[in-house]
Amino acid sequence: MAQSSKVLETFPNPAPGRDYAIHMRIPEFTCLCPKTGQPDFAELALDYVPDGLCVELKSLKLYIWSFRNEGRFHEAVTNEILEDLVKATAPRFMRLTAKFFVRGGIFTTVVAEHRKAGWEAHTRVDLARFDSQSSTNTGEAR
Amino acid sequence: MAQSSKVLETFPNPAPGRDYAIHMRIPEFTCLCPKTGQPDFAELALDYVPDGLCVELKSLKLYIWSFRNEGRFHEAVTNEILEDLVKATAPRFMRLTAKFFVRGGIFTTVVAEHRKAGWEAHTRVDLARFDSQSSTNTGEAR
Amino acid sequence: MAQSSKVLETFPNPAPGRDYAIHMRIPEFTCLCPKTGQPDFAELALDYVPDGLCVELKSLKLYIWSFRNEGRFHEAVTNEILEDLVKATAPRFMRLTAKFFVRGGIFTTVVAEHRKAGWEAHTRVDLARFDSQSSTNTGEAR
Amino acid sequence: MAQSSKVLETFPNPAPGRDYAIHMRIPEFTCLCPKTGQPDFAELALDYVPDGLCVELKSLKLYIWSFRNEGRFHEAVTNEILEDLVKATAPRFMRLTAKFFVRGGIFTTVVAEHRKAGWEAHTRVDLARFDSQSSTNTGEAR
Amino acid sequence: MAQSSKVLETFPNPAPGRDYAIHMRIPEFTCLCPKTGQPDFAELALDYVPDGLCVELKSLKLYIWSFRNEGRFHEAVTNEILEDLVKATAPRFMRLTAKFFVRGGIFTTVVAEHRKAGWEAHTRVDLARFDSQSSTNTGEAR
Amino acid sequence: MAQSSKVLETFPNPAPGRDYAIHMRIPEFTCLCPKTGQPDFAELALDYVPDGLCVELKSLKLYIWSFRNEGRFHEAVTNEILEDLVKATAPRFMRLTAKFFVRGGIFTTVVAEHRKAGWEAHTRVDLARFDSQSSTNTGEAR
Amino acid sequence: MAQSSKVLETFPNPAPGRDYAIHMRIPEFTCLCPKTGQPDFAELALDYVPDGLCVELKSLKLYIWSFRNEGRFHEAVTNEILEDLVKATAPRFMRLTAKFFVRGGIFTTVVAEHRKAGWEAHTRVDLARFDSQSSTNTGEAR
Amino acid sequence: MAQSSKVLETFPNPAPGRDYAIHMRIPEFTCLCPKTGQPDFAELALDYVPDGLCVELKSLKLYIWSFRNEGRFHEAVTNEILEDLVKATAPRFMRLTAKFFVRGGIFTTVVAEHRKAGWEAHTRVDLARFDSQSSTNTGEAR
Amino acid sequence: MAQSSKVLETFPNPAPGRDYAIHMRIPEFTCLCPKTGQPDFAELALDYVPDGLCVELKSLKLYIWSFRNEGRFHEAVTNEILEDLVKATAPRFMRLTAKFFVRGGIFTTVVAEHRKAGWEAHTRVDLARFDSQSSTNTGEAR
Amino acid sequence: MAQSSKVLETFPNPAPGRDYAIHMRIPEFTCLCPKTGQPDFAELALDYVPDGLCVELKSLKLYIWSFRNEGRFHEAVTNEILEDLVKATAPRFMRLTAKFFVRGGIFTTVVAEHRKAGWEAHTRVDLARFDSQSSTNTGEAR
Repeated sequence: MAQSSKVLETFPNPAPGRDYAIHMRIPEFTCLCPKTGQPDFAELALDYVPDGLCVELKSLKLYIWSFRNEGRFHEAVTNEILEDLVKATAPRFMRLTAKFFVRGGIFTTVVAEHRKAGWEAHTRVDLARFDSQSSTNTGEAR
Repeated sequence: MAQSSKVLETFPNPAPGRDYAIHMRIPEFTCLCPKTGQPDFAELALDYVPDGLCVELKSLKLYIWSFRNEGRFHEAVTNEILEDLVKATAPRFMRLTAKFFVRGGIFTTVVAEHRKAGWEAHTRVDLARFDSQSSTNTGEAR
Repeated sequence: MAQSSKVLETFPNPAPGRDYAIHMRIPEFTCLCPKTGQPDFAELALDYVPDGLCVELKSLKLYIWSFRNEGRFHEAVTNEILEDLVKATAPRFMRLTAKFFVRGGIFTTVVAEHRKAGWEAHTRVDLARFDSQSSTNTGEAR
Repeated sequence: MAQSSKVLETFPNPAPGRDYAIHMRIPEFTCLCPKTGQPDFAELALDYVPDGLCVELKSLKLYIWSFRNEGRFHEAVTNEILEDLVKATAPRFMRLTAKFFVRGGIFTTVVAEHRKAGWEAHTRVDLARFDSQSSTNTGEAR
Repeated sequence: MAQSSKVLETFPNPAPGRDYAIHMRIPEFTCLCPKTGQPDFAELALDYVPDGLCVELKSLKLYIWSFRNEGRFHEAVTNEILEDLVKATAPRFMRLTAKFFVRGGIFTTVVAEHRKAGWEAHTRVDLARFDSQSSTNTGEAR
Repeated sequence: MAQSSKVLETFPNPAPGRDYAIHMRIPEFTCLCPKTGQPDFAELALDYVPDGLCVELKSLKLYIWSFRNEGRFHEAVTNEILEDLVKATAPRFMRLTAKFFVRGGIFTTVVAEHRKAGWEAHTRVDLARFDSQSSTNTGEAR
Repeated sequence: MAQSSKVLETFPNPAPGRDYAIHMRIPEFTCLCPKTGQPDFAELALDYVPDGLCVELKSLKLYIWSFRNEGRFHEAVTNEILEDLVKATAPRFMRLTAKFFVRGGIFTTVVAEHRKAGWEAHTRVDLARFDSQSSTNTGEAR
Repeated sequence: MAQSSKVLETFPNPAPGRDYAIHMRIPEFTCLCPKTGQPDFAELALDYVPDGLCVELKSLKLYIWSFRNEGRFHEAVTNEILEDLVKATAPRFMRLTAKFFVRGGIFTTVVAEHRKAGWEAHTRVDLARFDSQSSTNTGEAR
Repeated sequence: MAQSSKVLETFPNPAPGRDYAIHMRIPEFTCLCPKTGQPDFAELALDYVPDGLCVELKSLKLYIWSFRNEGRFHEAVTNEILEDLVKATAPRFMRLTAKFFVRGGIFTTVVAEHRKAGWEAHTRVDLARFDSQSSTNTGEAR
Repeated sequence: MAQSSKVLETFPNPAPGRDYAIHMRIPEFTCLCPKTGQPDFAELALDYVPDGLCVELKSLKLYIWSFRNEGRFHEAVTNEILEDLVKATAPRFMRLTAKFFVRGGIFTTVVAEHRKAGWEAHTRVDLARFDSQSSTNTGEAR
């Protein structure tokens, strides 16, 4: 039987000479509410620019699982996961977005970032904006 | 100052010789939870085939408003509003759909219908299905 | 200068031997509210199975325009336009859908149909349902 | 601290004289994979026509929670939850839809239904189809 | 240089023992308006249940191209293409949907069908309806 | 009976100490084409940062109505409405977007802005981007 | 290293007493074009009502993989996969939908079904239709 | 029975050393129109960068409720709620967006911001833009 | 009969004192592939800030039509059309976006810009971002 | 029979005097997982500003195919393809986005960029933002 784990494994960045971005959408986060003991759910998104190390996908999955039976507040757990990931990978930039499921009729999302001292992002080059539902390929006569 | 009202006014159906449908989307329904006293919200949709009478739009608005300070359960209030509308207009067919806002992480919708004794719907004629985001007019290069 | 017109012109159905459907979306309908004199707006959709005659597109446009300065109630005008079109084209089947712009916080749509005596629709053949935003052609990495 | 529970509480149907529908979307289901012990996730949808009893929302929430630490296969757990709900409420009709999160690159959904012996649904009255992104209210110039 | 062609080539249906459906979306149709000589555009969709023959994709493309410099009215050309395809493949069922680009502010779609004498469609089995934008896989925290 | 009007009424800005934005979507604009006399339609969007005055909603509605029987070109009328609104409210910033309905197969939008001399916008703070169709609340198993 | 396989493994249906549906979306199908040797791609969807056996997810994945280096035509391979699945599981009902990626500017989808002799579907109970982008939970002010 | 309240409770920011963002979508706001006494509705969105304090979710809910029977104009109430929240939490940055339901055919949204003196936002790092309806996971063959 | 034309007609900019934007979506572009002679299709979008002249809509339509029987490569024709439009109108800024229909399984879009020497755009004022599918007006209970 | 190839062919940029953008969406990428030997899938998007050379579409297709039987990690292959394209075309700017299909419940996207030494992007001119589902052309009454 598999086990959850707090250990985040890494592998060497295959292209350390270049600032590039990795985006990981993680829809399966759940923990417990510290006040009521009831389950909380969130979808996480991790965005980072690796430096020497990348986070290994399978260990990330087990790490996310490790919160399943632990009590955490929304704001705190988002910052905690970011910090764990920063410690493990020492990235040039990292952002964690946590979209929590609705509580009390209110939908909460928390977004926290880390920037390596001295690192600066390239200016974004915005060549164009593309509408993914363009007439060139999505219209469908049924 | 305007007043809410339980009175549903009507006007004579201008085309009583034909079965035809009226759909009214009503996004501004709110009442109170009978247990906790806290506000509840819903979007209603009314669909009906009028017989001799149609419901007057402005009085419908004041009627919807009349629940603002009253305690009602989801299942009960949907049936109650349907019955009030049936009493006022004696329609050939009427359906009320109430999409309540999330409570306890669960999204509840209640749908109730009335059919006049002996009335039967025409078979639906399904000429075609049209995709509203077709390439003939919605693609947009930006 | 062009003129609006109540005359609906027609042309002979090029395929009278077959039941087939014509759908016309008409987003530019406006008339006046008979009570307040203020403008009302709607998007119309016409669906029909022609018999001997089809409605001519340009005259339909001028006919729609003819309501611009006339007072009409939602339910009545939908039935009136349907009847005018039925008189002009004597179709096997015709449906008019009028989606009126919001009034009093309520969105009203009226749908009226005409069936030629004795005409019956073919059973709909539902070969499949296609999602127009499928991964085979609409995903877009940006 | 709150507790999960296998007990499904009910309340008397406020409109037993009428067939009407209740739809509950339940996005927070999680259990364990019996083979690997790893978490599984699903979004459930419950649709039913109550007879004498309705399911109480809060107890439904605690019941859904009760699977959190239990091993269940996709096909089996969908049928099990349906059966528990049928036992608790003896509905005229009930359908449970479970959309499981992707495993092995494959997205599985299971849909199971129960019909009370002798019960038959009214023929669906399809007055019209409304496109929720119509020009009457959703276009937005930004 | 390639040439357009009115010849529709076919190949033997690999599964003639079964009624099954083929859907082809063809976004690149253009012809000329017989009145004004100006270009018209449409997106076509072909749905059919083959009998002994299937239409060959490449010849279908050249056939569609063959209308590029020919004058055709909307209603007529939809029926003509359907008839050509029926002659070439003698299908059990065939439907052609032509969504023409807007003219005079009106969006016209024409849908024509052919059924082989004596052929009847299986009753549609509607196991479930799936929302393609479900939370199990499309939510995306950015 | 109500009357259209060229007069734009205002009320004092309740928070003049702060730069804040007001967005008004106005889907019911229509005027006439100066060349052909035929109706034109557009959806307007007004965005502004008020200074001492805000535009009053009801008078804005009557003002929009006042173009109903007047001839105006697309580019000119967009600038004219902007200027009228600027004169009436003397805003810090104002943008008018006019999305005209399709003519000649081409969809035209005109966007004009006014900035008060010396006024500068705060840098936009982009905390995060939220996908409104996130898995936390929109997936729906049906 | 894993191996693709033509063997479809099964497990006993946990609820054989009931007609219920299993839907599996399989976005990772690829094979080769028998004419050109070039890769083809499709997204498959499997819908079935199990009888004694269910298809095992992992073996289904390896089976799908097994077509990677084999030449197959669109119409033929859809029927072949359906037949293999029918042989392996002897279902009450099964439908395979294959949405192939665009070739020659044309988007082809093939849909094939199998029904066990004597089996008939329950009439579909259509309690209601729910719009997954309803105002009760998806609007998002950003 | 619960009570609405003007008191906004707070808790200590668990990560005061970092600028991070909290987004709260609040779809259940309603107040009264000061002129007519009729109900108004809005969906609020709160975005903020906490300094020493975060707003407590439950008290926020009761605070929102407190406007239910109070008369407020759109522009004024948006600024008032922002100010109350700023007073309670003294944030580094805060933005309140209020999307009011349609009145007079016009859809009004008000957006107000507060910035702590001397605070400046980090430059936004735009690693990439992700289309949430990408082919990697949302296409669905049905 | 109408004729296509390479002549782009203009009219004097009605508001030359202000930088404002005109956006024209042109879904009906087609030319020929210079290599194969087969038709190519694209949707164009023109964005510009006029200086002394605006492009006349009808002549633009005839100009677009003029490419129908001419061979052009994707990258070249986008730049050529931009240059023709720049020559005709001498704008302060102009951008042409051409979204070509899929070829070889690849979807190509080309975007080219012209800026008048010395012209600089105003900084974009981003008052707010509005979700066009907000709960204030698009949710629809059906 | 066609052959995959590692050779990327080019053609001279037809407009080298201008910075302009080419966007190519490539939905048909597949390679193998170096650890398990199982297939991986991704949709690629290439964005570039050409200098002297453009990449030829057909050779790009064969190049993408060349990874079909090769083992590659997500992060590494994205950088490798970018580098191959940079070597072949020496562009002013190039970005490659690779959206990999879900593995372990996590959706990974990798985005890498190259900028020619000394090249700087023009400031983006943001004339306006257009909602592609505007009321001017996409609403559809059905």
